Amino acid sequence: MAKTAGRGQGQVEGLWGVIPAGGSGTRLWPLSRSAVPKFLHDLTGSGRSLLQSTWDRLEPVCGNRLVVVTGERHADAVRGQLPGLPGRCLLAEPSPRESMPAIGLAAALIEREDPDAVVGSFAADHVIQDVAAFQSCVREAVAVARTDMLVTIGIEPTYPAMGFGYIRLGEALPVPDAPSAHRVRSFVEKPGRATARRYVRSGEYRWNAGMFVVRASVLLDLLATYDPALAAGLRKIAADPDRLDELWPTLGPAVIDRAVAEPAAAEGRVAVIPATFDWDDVGDFASLATLVHECADDAPGLKVLGQRELVVSQETTGIVLPRSGRTVVTLGLDDVVVVDTPDALLVTSRQRAQDVKAVVDILKTQGRANLT
Amino acid sequence: MAKTAGRGQGQVEGLWGVIPAGGSGTRLWPLSRSAVPKFLHDLTGSGRSLLQSTWDRLEPVCGNRLVVVTGERHADAVRGQLPGLPGRCLLAEPSPRESMPAIGLAAALIEREDPDAVVGSFAADHVIQDVAAFQSCVREAVAVARTDMLVTIGIEPTYPAMGFGYIRLGEALPVPDAPSAHRVRSFVEKPGRATARRYVRSGEYRWNAGMFVVRASVLLDLLATYDPALAAGLRKIAADPDRLDELWPTLGPAVIDRAVAEPAAAEGRVAVIPATFDWDDVGDFASLATLVHECADDAPGLKVLGQRELVVSQETTGIVLPRSGRTVVTLGLDDVVVVDTPDALLVTSRQRAQDVKAVVDILKTQGRANLT
Repeated sequence: MAKTAGRGQGQVEGLWGVIPAGGSGTRLWPLSRSAVPKFLHDLTGSGRSLLQSTWDRLEPVCGNRLVVVTGERHADAVRGQLPGLPGRCLLAEPSPRESMPAIGLAAALIEREDPDAVVGSFAADHVIQDVAAFQSCVREAVAVARTDMLVTIGIEPTYPAMGFGYIRLGEALPVPDAPSAHRVRSFVEKPGRATARRYVRSGEYRWNAGMFVVRASVLLDLLATYDPALAAGLRKIAADPDRLDELWPTLGPAVIDRAVAEPAAAEGRVAVIPATFDWDDVGDFASLATLVHECADDAPGLKVLGQRELVVSQETTGIVLPRSGRTVVTLGLDDVVVVDTPDALLVTSRQRAQDVKAVVDILKTQGRANLT
Repeated sequence: MAKTAGRGQGQVEGLWGVIPAGGSGTRLWPLSRSAVPKFLHDLTGSGRSLLQSTWDRLEPVCGNRLVVVTGERHADAVRGQLPGLPGRCLLAEPSPRESMPAIGLAAALIEREDPDAVVGSFAADHVIQDVAAFQSCVREAVAVARTDMLVTIGIEPTYPAMGFGYIRLGEALPVPDAPSAHRVRSFVEKPGRATARRYVRSGEYRWNAGMFVVRASVLLDLLATYDPALAAGLRKIAADPDRLDELWPTLGPAVIDRAVAEPAAAEGRVAVIPATFDWDDVGDFASLATLVHECADDAPGLKVLGQRELVVSQETTGIVLPRSGRTVVTLGLDDVVVVDTPDALLVTSRQRAQDVKAVVDILKTQGRANLT
């Protein structure tokens, strides 16, 4: 990759955006499939897929310093959705290895291009509506990252979620241009209900949205401390990208939180920018329903993601995704979820939305993996 | 039609079965459509359509003295389902005129073939499982019909139905070979809930299943008394079937209950054979659900009408009709109704099954009549 200095009005010089585009969004089946996963879908009715919206959020601050890391089988779809992405900025993983090798490979390549580069990693399948607030947090995070800390963005909890990990805030950090920065005391796993309530009440915790901003060299040096083989492997590939297929299979799978963020936090080397913008990882259809507007016109309480005119609804609340071109009629149902695709139909309730994953597992064990 | 005496062991000599095959089964949409109405569907999983099952019930008592009356647009489908039906025994109505002209035309044609003939009219879209009990009632009804009465078969109510008309029993009739025959005091319209309860408690009422057994000549003579123009028109067509297209449009629509049965009952000329066999007119999906066996194996409380292997169900009760070849997944729903067809999907509850008709009306007003 050729170095391109970011000098646009809103661009942050030296900031490289990294977009890991992975995950299958199993709880959004049958909309999301392993062949066409969540990040390739428009889940908000905006006309842009989650991947495209992620690009749209980052392009104003990163310019053309944007790298997407995805699985080989999705590389063509990513290219199709992001025609502005230079070929050298699309990294195709030969096999899935979780987030650390994906982000680490991008960082290792960027480090060789631009030894001072700061990388900001933001998943391709999250939804953020307040783009200005997001970008403002990114700018603060970059300012802290330049002090050689690993920086995360922590989302203010709006309810005691049990589906996310949390970040415990430490003391405020005196970094110029980052007035809201705090040190991270620790990362904590997905809590039970009572613990989640306590976290939210305390005001000391933020949701861990998996956003990391850090100098490329700092990330790899931290990784070299905690997992020397992985760091060395990634730097070897960056030195000779032709060896990707040879070396990638030797890298163990690893998640960036556990591989780097948690041990670095224990050493006091992680900062957090507490954020107040909306954020959702659109984990299931109940979560998706909160992002879609009601059909206030003639079907109060009903949300339709797709062609509104395909849905004829009487006294129904919930969400309908008409994605097969067929007419969908719902009558007298509360909080229903109907997902209509050309080869599979799901009918459930918002309350059971998180259990869709279990059904997908059943489909796999029943030899219906072609549907998943 | 050539006269064919019924001398088979179980056949009833001189009995002609008439099967009016009409009605669209709107509350069974989107399974039942105006183009492929209820009577053409297998609604019990028996492998035979309702029309074919009606044929199967009548053939042992009528032999080849069976006539089907249907709309012109369904004549080909009827021929396809009943390959044993001689062409001359399929009467195609040029336009819908309700039950009296349909049954009356069959009776007028049969009357010319066989002046002593008794006709038994049984709708093509009802379900009766106990065929032997049905046939036994038909034999009793024929014995009474030979005394020149109009005879109906009244179904013992199993619950205070509000969707059926009722027949009020009068005194027992001393007819040889018809030990259970009673005179009909009156026909009563579909009652409200309290009235229906009173009817059932009293033991004096039977459901009106629209089954009539009567000499062809008696039926037309009664009609000549109450609606001389209609009777004359039907007999004119029978005398010269080539005039069907010319004369049919001049006949007013009329329902046999109102045109003949009710006024004849007022004169004491109607008898009833009280029946105890199961009977269902499969009016809606709730009614249909009672006819389909549970998937006791792995989905207790769920009924599937169609390819069982297309349905993957977790903690769901209700009924699923997988008719599009797609996989249908249901999760955590009570008493749901899912009808999956190639161009339309219905999701509702058993409680709301009878309101499906209103949705079909909406589709028509919205210019989606092609779906109905």
